[in-house]
Amino acid sequence: MNQFDHSTAQARLAAPRLPSVTTGPLPASTKRHVQGVIYPDIRVPMRQITVHPSAGEPPVTVYDASGPYTDPAVVTDIARGLAPIRSDWLAARGDCEPYAARPVRPADNGFASGERLVPGFPVQRAPLRARAGGAVTQLAYARAGIITPEMEYVAIRENLGRTGAASTKRDGEDFGAAIPDHVTPEFVRQEIAAGRAIIPANINHPELEPMIIGRNFAVKINANMGTSAVTSSMADEVDKMVWAIRWGADTVMDLSTGRNIHNTREWILRNAPVPIGTVPLYQALEKVDGVAEDLTWEIYRDTLIEQAEQGVDYFTIHAGVRLHYIPLTVNRVTGIVSRGGSIMAKWCLHHHRESFLYEHFNEICDIMRAYDVSFSLGDGLRPGCIADANDAAQFAELETLGELTRIAWAKDCQVMIEGPGHVAMHKIKANMDKQLATCGEAPFYTLGPLTTDIAPGYDHITSAIGAAMIGWFGTAMLCYVTPKEHLGLPDRADVKTGVITYKIAAHAADLAKGLPGAQARDDALSRARFEFRWEDQFNLSLDPDTARDFHDQTLPKEAHKTA
Amino acid sequence: MNQFDHSTAQARLAAPRLPSVTTGPLPASTKRHVQGVIYPDIRVPMRQITVHPSAGEPPVTVYDASGPYTDPAVVTDIARGLAPIRSDWLAARGDCEPYAARPVRPADNGFASGERLVPGFPVQRAPLRARAGGAVTQLAYARAGIITPEMEYVAIRENLGRTGAASTKRDGEDFGAAIPDHVTPEFVRQEIAAGRAIIPANINHPELEPMIIGRNFAVKINANMGTSAVTSSMADEVDKMVWAIRWGADTVMDLSTGRNIHNTREWILRNAPVPIGTVPLYQALEKVDGVAEDLTWEIYRDTLIEQAEQGVDYFTIHAGVRLHYIPLTVNRVTGIVSRGGSIMAKWCLHHHRESFLYEHFNEICDIMRAYDVSFSLGDGLRPGCIADANDAAQFAELETLGELTRIAWAKDCQVMIEGPGHVAMHKIKANMDKQLATCGEAPFYTLGPLTTDIAPGYDHITSAIGAAMIGWFGTAMLCYVTPKEHLGLPDRADVKTGVITYKIAAHAADLAKGLPGAQARDDALSRARFEFRWEDQFNLSLDPDTARDFHDQTLPKEAHKTA
Repeated sequence: MNQFDHSTAQARLAAPRLPSVTTGPLPASTKRHVQGVIYPDIRVPMRQITVHPSAGEPPVTVYDASGPYTDPAVVTDIARGLAPIRSDWLAARGDCEPYAARPVRPADNGFASGERLVPGFPVQRAPLRARAGGAVTQLAYARAGIITPEMEYVAIRENLGRTGAASTKRDGEDFGAAIPDHVTPEFVRQEIAAGRAIIPANINHPELEPMIIGRNFAVKINANMGTSAVTSSMADEVDKMVWAIRWGADTVMDLSTGRNIHNTREWILRNAPVPIGTVPLYQALEKVDGVAEDLTWEIYRDTLIEQAEQGVDYFTIHAGVRLHYIPLTVNRVTGIVSRGGSIMAKWCLHHHRESFLYEHFNEICDIMRAYDVSFSLGDGLRPGCIADANDAAQFAELETLGELTRIAWAKDCQVMIEGPGHVAMHKIKANMDKQLATCGEAPFYTLGPLTTDIAPGYDHITSAIGAAMIGWFGTAMLCYVTPKEHLGLPDRADVKTGVITYKIAAHAADLAKGLPGAQARDDALSRARFEFRWEDQFNLSLDPDTARDFHDQTLPKEAHKTA
Repeated sequence: MNQFDHSTAQARLAAPRLPSVTTGPLPASTKRHVQGVIYPDIRVPMRQITVHPSAGEPPVTVYDASGPYTDPAVVTDIARGLAPIRSDWLAARGDCEPYAARPVRPADNGFASGERLVPGFPVQRAPLRARAGGAVTQLAYARAGIITPEMEYVAIRENLGRTGAASTKRDGEDFGAAIPDHVTPEFVRQEIAAGRAIIPANINHPELEPMIIGRNFAVKINANMGTSAVTSSMADEVDKMVWAIRWGADTVMDLSTGRNIHNTREWILRNAPVPIGTVPLYQALEKVDGVAEDLTWEIYRDTLIEQAEQGVDYFTIHAGVRLHYIPLTVNRVTGIVSRGGSIMAKWCLHHHRESFLYEHFNEICDIMRAYDVSFSLGDGLRPGCIADANDAAQFAELETLGELTRIAWAKDCQVMIEGPGHVAMHKIKANMDKQLATCGEAPFYTLGPLTTDIAPGYDHITSAIGAAMIGWFGTAMLCYVTPKEHLGLPDRADVKTGVITYKIAAHAADLAKGLPGAQARDDALSRARFEFRWEDQFNLSLDPDTARDFHDQTLPKEAHKTA
């Protein structure tokens, strides 16, 4: 693996440590690009894993979220950012225009200065926004019957090179989903138009390799990261982002707090081929020195625009935490555990007013549609323990999220819905069923859920159980949980463990829901296992390095490996 | 923690390294013993976890499989073995008699000699067997209306100190199980009499702290270990056994191969407070130099008696691999992956004869009932990959296991049934439903199942997903899978990871099936979390050491911990 050579960047910037990221292909893997048909300039990346010639089998094609970092043909430079592959597509639509960006203010970076200030990203670009109140969202295009380059891109991406009718016989229980044998651009358009899927793709994030989140596609996973007041730096977070996508994270949420939020986010976005999500409330809170009561709609609104201009692809917005729901949480074992939820509850109780997020929801929609930022409607009242699962507070908020979904859809905004949290297995399906019914089949995006509270240090596992199940039942994206959940901030190793664990959950869900082609990788690995092709087993696995290492520990000699 | 001082043992034996095991209580834990009512000499161990006085809460009582090793009041000595707490109970029944043991032969230890021979266990005891063809099984007693000390013991153990009616409101989906609010000795008797539960308890394993395996009780877990031809020693295996039960393994299977099988097993049994299971075929194969075709009924029968005399509590017997089922596996992706299954298939095909295990099943039952060795009817044709799950071979064998269950029951033998393996989530419930219907509700004992094949190195997780689900659906015991599955032999760290992961799966299943009282630990930990009682969170968790360590990594100062 090559490390990014940042000598150039160092010469340019008198700055703190610059990011060093892991690049180079995964073992036995090459990157293949599939060209578009409607849009011939589209080049959709896939990873091909070559097996030993003795197998007499073609390479196995797998979904590739890792971006150009694993492409030996591309020289990446963190200080320049990734190539803006979507710029031409955006320009061709002709419905947005560049304008002078909102100036970066000291408060945006928590008044960090001097050596404590993360340097601004070296390359500046004027932000785009929709002309004159228009909606530049994938939903608006889909409803207008337009298949965008993003839609064709994800259609190609989901098929993984399979063409025509299903190449494998269908097997699975999809609980009423409508998973096609083969994904066409028109199918993607229909799913988006129906609100059943979203392509989070801010027009100011042209570096994005589009991906789709929806029940009728492969289950996706998100990895959280972000600086905090006490630990980690911008360089660490950029490194973790590249590291997370290397192992398969489909989106990354930057949950930074403390200082330098604006500049850290800029470095992440300019180097991110995956959608980046944020919780704008976190930055808004920093702007009022952490005093929730001092939050205002104006500060929040300004933060939305700030982040939309930078290119954040989806915003978690806890607009469902309504004033009169808060009393429903008083008898809970763990009250309100969502950070956004508790901030808003504090604000509502202090002012004894309805949430400004709820009251200004229409205006929020107007911002979202101008940049195509997708909603991730936050579950601020999600249960924080088994005892609180599926309670009145949680489901009351879900009803409101359904109401807000309809408002957002009326504004042509893309929407997904966040879900819990901590739920024992027998109560998981009710969450999915209720979400589908209440939110009109908008994609569900859940954290776990954790199926027991008794294993801190292992909550990637307690939650992978729930995540696999709810993914099977119809959840479109699973937010990872790392071993450090409840205990501390994840380091690089935790990020990898979280991502691999959630790739397992997502893939188990894909198999169970009968996603066409999903089993091909299992079958190839199983054949390799049966034939003692050890290297093929390692290379086909989610984490070849760990599989190889574990095998070497007890059987150190090459002779044993091929026996 | 104290380490066993083996100076005495060293003086007595000119031998290889003697076991050193981890002893001492877990953090904030004390061992409490609950006395029997029917049998006042019964002292059932439970672990009480004390919480901070500020909580104003009583200690939390949890199931304790760890044996005397965590009891500061007991001095354990590996070279003497554990106290034979059941001896008086066995004597009082007056239905078995001591006799001269089958002599240990060089072949029993693979002809190991000199320094390569694991020394015999220092303390010898004449084995017991039933008088004159009698059945000394818990099933025979249960059917005769007798509540044994073992039955009262497990009844007390399952209740964890709860008395009378359920102390918590019932919550769960038990799929037709009949889980009582409170377990009485009479309920235990009825469950055993009905074949729905077993107490694996060989009369030659008086050191055993009885435990019950059945759908209407807490889900149990098994940990596999054992020496192999190339790695590990007797000392390592005894250490791993004590280590596994420290973290919660309810039974341990000794799957040793190679030399020294007999003597290693003796050391394990004499120091094991949990039931020990084996696959006798493994040792029988060693006796014929690994040539499956040379196996005979006589060699196998001799091995059963050898192990029954030592006190093995349950035998995996692959009597369901019938000659005419073998062709059903030819089109599989991974053929026959069960070691026992493939040995028997090889034998059957070579001789073109029906399995001697099947043909001699009645005689096997006669041995089992004379010592109360429980059957674990092996799934020799279990699927070894997602592609082979729920196929004709697997289900044909299951039908035969049902037939054999009825034969064993007619002989008053206790029976459980082994299950897969590798199964995608949507096919798991069919396994449980079919097992219940086919095997008359005999307890199901499953390996995983693994829900995908693409994550070697993480198969504790791929399988914990399936294990939690099938445990919820009604499986009584879950056989753990470690991170080394498919790659190598588990070391001490892997054993712990496997056990903790499976405790998670079992507990998640208990919550979902609504086991009374199961949620108490979750709730106590969640309250500690809500109140920032960090030490209580660590102490109440399945692995306090890891939770504490993870927390300390990012928040090193004590001040932070209580903040």
